[in-house]
Amino acid sequence: MNDIEFKKSGPAIILVAPQLGENIGMVARAMLNCGLTDLRLVAPRDGWPSLEAVATSANATTVIENVRVYQKTEHAIADIDTLYATTARPRDMTKRIVTPRQGAAELVQKTNAGSHCGLLFGREAKGLKNEDIVLADTILTVPLNPEFTSLNLAQAVFCVAYEWFQAHGQTPPEELNIPKYTKPANKRELIGMFEHFEKSLDDSGFLQITEKRPNMVRNLRNMWQRAQLTEQEVRTLRGIITAITRFKPPSKD
Amino acid sequence: MNDIEFKKSGPAIILVAPQLGENIGMVARAMLNCGLTDLRLVAPRDGWPSLEAVATSANATTVIENVRVYQKTEHAIADIDTLYATTARPRDMTKRIVTPRQGAAELVQKTNAGSHCGLLFGREAKGLKNEDIVLADTILTVPLNPEFTSLNLAQAVFCVAYEWFQAHGQTPPEELNIPKYTKPANKRELIGMFEHFEKSLDDSGFLQITEKRPNMVRNLRNMWQRAQLTEQEVRTLRGIITAITRFKPPSKD
Repeated sequence: MNDIEFKKSGPAIILVAPQLGENIGMVARAMLNCGLTDLRLVAPRDGWPSLEAVATSANATTVIENVRVYQKTEHAIADIDTLYATTARPRDMTKRIVTPRQGAAELVQKTNAGSHCGLLFGREAKGLKNEDIVLADTILTVPLNPEFTSLNLAQAVFCVAYEWFQAHGQTPPEELNIPKYTKPANKRELIGMFEHFEKSLDDSGFLQITEKRPNMVRNLRNMWQRAQLTEQEVRTLRGIITAITRFKPPSKD
Repeated sequence: MNDIEFKKSGPAIILVAPQLGENIGMVARAMLNCGLTDLRLVAPRDGWPSLEAVATSANATTVIENVRVYQKTEHAIADIDTLYATTARPRDMTKRIVTPRQGAAELVQKTNAGSHCGLLFGREAKGLKNEDIVLADTILTVPLNPEFTSLNLAQAVFCVAYEWFQAHGQTPPEELNIPKYTKPANKRELIGMFEHFEKSLDDSGFLQITEKRPNMVRNLRNMWQRAQLTEQEVRTLRGIITAITRFKPPSKD
């Protein structure tokens, strides 16, 4: 899907009774980092709009300018089909509970099927009240160090938004980053360099102990191999070998 | 492994030239959320210790009190065996690049094998300089919305620390949260309730159209089944059925 569709289909982030405008701004920034744009506030303590929010949003204006404000959670979630409440594991409630990763996989599946999803977050420090949690289909709990679970509001939103973005899985887990102007050296280029290098070592006398030569050559070739050289680096190295070989130290006489 | 081992073995977080104490405090909080405690600063702009850092750390004192300060990146990473540089994809450098998830899997594997790992983060807004990036074995890049990649420093640290914590994989992706004082209803309890409920519907005349009864009963049983009732809820529902059945509306005569 293209970028616009991607953003339109993303889940809504609903902050219930947020206190600091700074945190709302940081939430907006974290959302846009992960391609989410639908931010809703329920009874923000210091009102809306907020200069503090604009200041910390790092120009996430798409999010800030489209914020919708409600007085009750029920109104903010009216058009939502599936709602997740982000909270620490509640002690006295029977409800399905998922990790952000599992929840993100579900969000992608549901939004692809045309469902409108939302994520509910409570106020700083205190979190969601039970009467808000019961409105949700599922609880979403971030697994954290059990000795220190107090998560900043913007971090909580970032965590879920980040998992949502990763769940689209378009990034390879690992690759070799190579500048545009070059390419990985092929084996002909590499072996040419190996032989050039080994000839310079032979000439210099470094490989003169015949019984040690095969092992030494093998180790050096493995070292170069591990370096995953580019075609340009191979050319640079051959230039270096040529330059060093030509260099004659000034006679001490 | 137990908690103490877990914390000791975690990677070091190294902030190069951080500017705001507030951000350093938020980094400390994010680290402890994920069980990391080894925070190192290279040339913090506003010096160290920092009252602002203490204020935003939310009592992550274990981290704050053990911060080590260095003047050069080379000194801060001297005891590190494997170093990851967290940065956006650099244009003109040939280096292995991984996602936070792949990097976290590697960190767990390496630290379990006794290796000392570190994660390098650059200053706010500007990120790491090339001369710091070249010191790293691998680049770690957070996949983000390509139209808005400016990530807050504490969010970047949280992202990697969060992946590190999740990579230990001790949390089930999904479960039913149930209060300690009850347990899921077993089939005997459920079927007893179904029959009690259906008898009350028979008695009230609700199921009087014989040909519709089997389908209606099936739908209602499925509805209750989906609700994943606890043993306590089954008892409550049976109490409700009894109460409603006994209730006789006052005669209109």
